[in-house]
Amino acid sequence: ADVKKIAVIAGDGIGPEVVGEALKVLKKTEELFGYQFEIEHGLFGGIAIDEKGTPLPQETLDICKNADAVLLGAVGGPKWDNNPKELRPETGLLGIRKALGLFSNIRPANVFDCLKEASTLKPEVLEGTDLIVVRELTGGIYFGEKFRREGEHGEEAVDTCVYNVKEVERIARQGFEIARNRRKKLASVDKANVLETSRLWREVVNRIAVEYPDVELEHVLVDNCAMQLLRRPASFDVIVTENMFGDIISDEAAMLTGSIGMLSSASLGEGSFGLYEPVHGSAPDIAGQGISNPIATILSVALMFRLTFGYAEAAQAIEDAVKSVLDAGHRTGDIAVDKSKAIGTTAMGDLIVAAM
Amino acid sequence: ADVKKIAVIAGDGIGPEVVGEALKVLKKTEELFGYQFEIEHGLFGGIAIDEKGTPLPQETLDICKNADAVLLGAVGGPKWDNNPKELRPETGLLGIRKALGLFSNIRPANVFDCLKEASTLKPEVLEGTDLIVVRELTGGIYFGEKFRREGEHGEEAVDTCVYNVKEVERIARQGFEIARNRRKKLASVDKANVLETSRLWREVVNRIAVEYPDVELEHVLVDNCAMQLLRRPASFDVIVTENMFGDIISDEAAMLTGSIGMLSSASLGEGSFGLYEPVHGSAPDIAGQGISNPIATILSVALMFRLTFGYAEAAQAIEDAVKSVLDAGHRTGDIAVDKSKAIGTTAMGDLIVAAM
Ligand SMILES: CC(C)[C@H](C(=O)O)[C@@H](O)C(=O)O
Ligand SMILES: CC(C)[C@H](C(=O)O)[C@@H](O)C(=O)O
Repeated sequence: ADVKKIAVIAGDGIGPEVVGEALKVLKKTEELFGYQFEIEHGLFGGIAIDEKGTPLPQETLDICKNADAVLLGAVGGPKWDNNPKELRPETGLLGIRKALGLFSNIRPANVFDCLKEASTLKPEVLEGTDLIVVRELTGGIYFGEKFRREGEHGEEAVDTCVYNVKEVERIARQGFEIARNRRKKLASVDKANVLETSRLWREVVNRIAVEYPDVELEHVLVDNCAMQLLRRPASFDVIVTENMFGDIISDEAAMLTGSIGMLSSASLGEGSFGLYEPVHGSAPDIAGQGISNPIATILSVALMFRLTFGYAEAAQAIEDAVKSVLDAGHRTGDIAVDKSKAIGTTAMGDLIVAAM
Repeated sequence: ADVKKIAVIAGDGIGPEVVGEALKVLKKTEELFGYQFEIEHGLFGGIAIDEKGTPLPQETLDICKNADAVLLGAVGGPKWDNNPKELRPETGLLGIRKALGLFSNIRPANVFDCLKEASTLKPEVLEGTDLIVVRELTGGIYFGEKFRREGEHGEEAVDTCVYNVKEVERIARQGFEIARNRRKKLASVDKANVLETSRLWREVVNRIAVEYPDVELEHVLVDNCAMQLLRRPASFDVIVTENMFGDIISDEAAMLTGSIGMLSSASLGEGSFGLYEPVHGSAPDIAGQGISNPIATILSVALMFRLTFGYAEAAQAIEDAVKSVLDAGHRTGDIAVDKSKAIGTTAMGDLIVAAM
């Protein structure tokens, strides 16, 4: 049989709780659809720092490399915030992206009908918002040379932002491909009026655009994009942008949907391999209380099914189950209007499994 | 008598129209308060490219250097968008900031009561929003070395982000000073979990914080800031950040107030000299129709009075006049609910002058 190997990295904070529910869903799809999954667990982030002295142990990297896909909970927390760079969870995150060649981060930001009220935006502005941010994930200022030096005016710090033609080409293609399968609109976000990397970015995107005459391309300056997301969120379909801008813009887009506890993401490389994780973080303030929302992680499994395994039917089953549980009025604390009626992490996971 | 010299740069698009109304207001304050202003006009931006072959003619720079303050309309437009770098309006903007040593950009983002409905945010979320973004304006990736080179994978582009201790110190102090005179809360925005310049930034801000024990300091990562501005805009008082982050965050903050046609800004150096301009751009699509909103430019004059000249009483008179005209229901097209009742640029300027 076709056994799929999944590396599971629970991580820190609420990571283990939400991943636990996602594992139940995985198991349920084995029963329902006859799939076979081989799960290997790896230590990563803060817990790996504590137990192995490094946020990304070689062993964990090997488990990931040996897998068909990775399911990640969340990493980080105040405990490790003041550590030196090499002992910080984020360093592990940057390391795993680079080591696995995950150059493309796919962040859907869509509005769940039943959560429209949760957004701070007016419902009529939000109406129809359904966009995807495609963020370049292994280049730019995140990975360029960084150092301190003595300058004319004392100590100075330097970061270097570098992009080459190939890096821009592959992420631009990714953006156009995704747009082609949706509403055929691509917004490329840069700061071409100031940055040389953005000018290269824009040249390459314009060149690739010729291969996609069916996709309507617009160039949006990053500052303007930050504004337009607020003014006309529903007008965006796919946004493609470089690493640092993508970090900011994707978080703004996620927050404005009001559905941040529900959003999943995929980080992809060449081929079908991918790392899947909820957009929300490790939420150390509510960790261990059993009240976190597992839906984003469960929907990350659905995304894995679609993008890595091609299990569209099962993905749909998961998404439908989530929708029916929400439609029936069940809510975890983060998305409940009446907090006193909120259910816990396990109860939410069980309801979704039952609805499948 | 104490004659103040003001360099006036009308610029492109709606620049000349809105500046025209601001000049009427200046004149009125001469009558009412006995001030004396000496105005010199300079060419800048697109119009300077057309007439002088450069966005920032030396003559204009001399006029500015010789003045006590600069009033700027707006620059740019599609006509010059595809020009080579040295013939672009933005290049003039970066050039004037650097040449005049304007390292600090002050961008208030507050909600005008009568415009609360204009925001895409829910009124109850916006309630009480009144923040100032203090953006570093002459350092960082905007001004670092930029170039192309042949790399391992073909052509690549490079931008360099550099900050030295002194640059961070002076803008941090600016942030703390402004916060001290307001609600005493400073949010310093960086990406210290990834960037070396941000780590330097945070170290210096923490060091300067010791001089301001009365100001409550929080460090916010830029991606989180983009989210928190949407979730709890009213909780921010003063935000201090580096050039690129400030560009994005200040535009997001301005847009969420719904008052973008009303917001003014100041760019300051050492001493009292400053450049004042509306936050909105040159709006080439409506230029020359006499329908643009002059209020942001008029309020920029008030800001100039407060920050450069110390004319607090006259500043108040301008701000009160604007408020009374708005309270009486007068609106330009951009802020009118009933567009058919909108008044033009000149009518709005005249009403404000009359209300003084
Ligand atoms: C933790 C941090 C390094 C990371 C990033 O900036 O990429 C996070 O914000 C994200 O978006 O995944
Ligand atoms: C036009 C551009 C160079 C400029 C900037 O990015 O600084 C503008 O966006 C601004 O914020 O004043």
